[in-house]
Amino acid sequence: MSISPSAALDAGRGPAEHDVRTQIIEAATAHFSHYGYDKTTVSDLAKAIGFSKAYIYKFFASKQAIGEVICTNCLGQIESEVHAALKGVQAPPERLRVLFTVIVEASLRLFLQDRRLYEIAVAAATDHWPSTQAYQGRIRQLVVEILAAGRASGAFETSTPLEETSRAVYQVLVPYLNPVTLPHLSVWHEEAPTALQDLVLRSLSPLR
Amino acid sequence: MSISPSAALDAGRGPAEHDVRTQIIEAATAHFSHYGYDKTTVSDLAKAIGFSKAYIYKFFASKQAIGEVICTNCLGQIESEVHAALKGVQAPPERLRVLFTVIVEASLRLFLQDRRLYEIAVAAATDHWPSTQAYQGRIRQLVVEILAAGRASGAFETSTPLEETSRAVYQVLVPYLNPVTLPHLSVWHEEAPTALQDLVLRSLSPLR
Repeated sequence: MSISPSAALDAGRGPAEHDVRTQIIEAATAHFSHYGYDKTTVSDLAKAIGFSKAYIYKFFASKQAIGEVICTNCLGQIESEVHAALKGVQAPPERLRVLFTVIVEASLRLFLQDRRLYEIAVAAATDHWPSTQAYQGRIRQLVVEILAAGRASGAFETSTPLEETSRAVYQVLVPYLNPVTLPHLSVWHEEAPTALQDLVLRSLSPLR
Repeated sequence: MSISPSAALDAGRGPAEHDVRTQIIEAATAHFSHYGYDKTTVSDLAKAIGFSKAYIYKFFASKQAIGEVICTNCLGQIESEVHAALKGVQAPPERLRVLFTVIVEASLRLFLQDRRLYEIAVAAATDHWPSTQAYQGRIRQLVVEILAAGRASGAFETSTPLEETSRAVYQVLVPYLNPVTLPHLSVWHEEAPTALQDLVLRSLSPLR
């Protein structure tokens, strides 16, 4: 097994950079969970972890940069659940159902289970952090792929422009992904979890 | 012209009750616009209008009761715009388009034009005030009526339960009615104002 150049470099100066970053993120996640993201400063965080503020700034340019990693981890967890649930599901209509169900339920669980980390999600969504923008782009791309596959297999209509229709389908889903809007709409999902999927799938049905 | 019993009664004791209520509402609307709803107390309001707090409480049980009337006026304005726009539009698919367009644009305008009155709308939506519940019920009923007319005329499919399908169509619209969720979604409406309508109408199209 060969040692990567960066690991070799790190070896000479204490804990590997990767490990320190992980350590800071773990401590920050715990700290934000207790004290909230909005009210915590990098100084508070440094004190809590036992590092100097300057040392933290060696690894992260700002509090938001730390929040970004936590946010990316949280969104990554939602995506992992979606991809795990999609594994083995072949038919495009069923894949669309799985996407809608799992993404809404995972978002509800992850955004709302921890009110303090929820603050990070809200800041990220409100200020359009790159982590949320990238996440939304990937989910939107997944919708495009499912629709394209459904068109190819004959399950979905082909008379509308793919890009436009995927965008509209994603637009139906998006209020349930956004941590600010989700809590105001979750009751709709609880009342009838498949209502939006049913409507969307009817809109995609081919000329019969 | 006959005088109503209550007007006759009021006549004996100064300004008619109706006029005082209107006067309080107008002054409160102006006051909230300047100072915000959340931060204003009934005492502040009484001072600003030049009435005693006790006198205001003769007409309104609480600050929320005043907010309710302002909220009802605001939502009534949105509904008036919708009904005015629907006048003369006969075809159910076109009526659905008009409903979606006018309600989203009137909501955007009325909720977001005045940040201070917006606070009342947010309180009303978040705490489920009767004014917003009743408004939502009426819009939902309008969706049912348009869908029923479309089914009767053969413009819409009839194979799904009307109540269930109307509910789903209303669910697509609802994030754009709620003053909390609307600002996070308005960009979608601006980018493609008919995308959701197109999708919904395709979902309603009859077996072809």
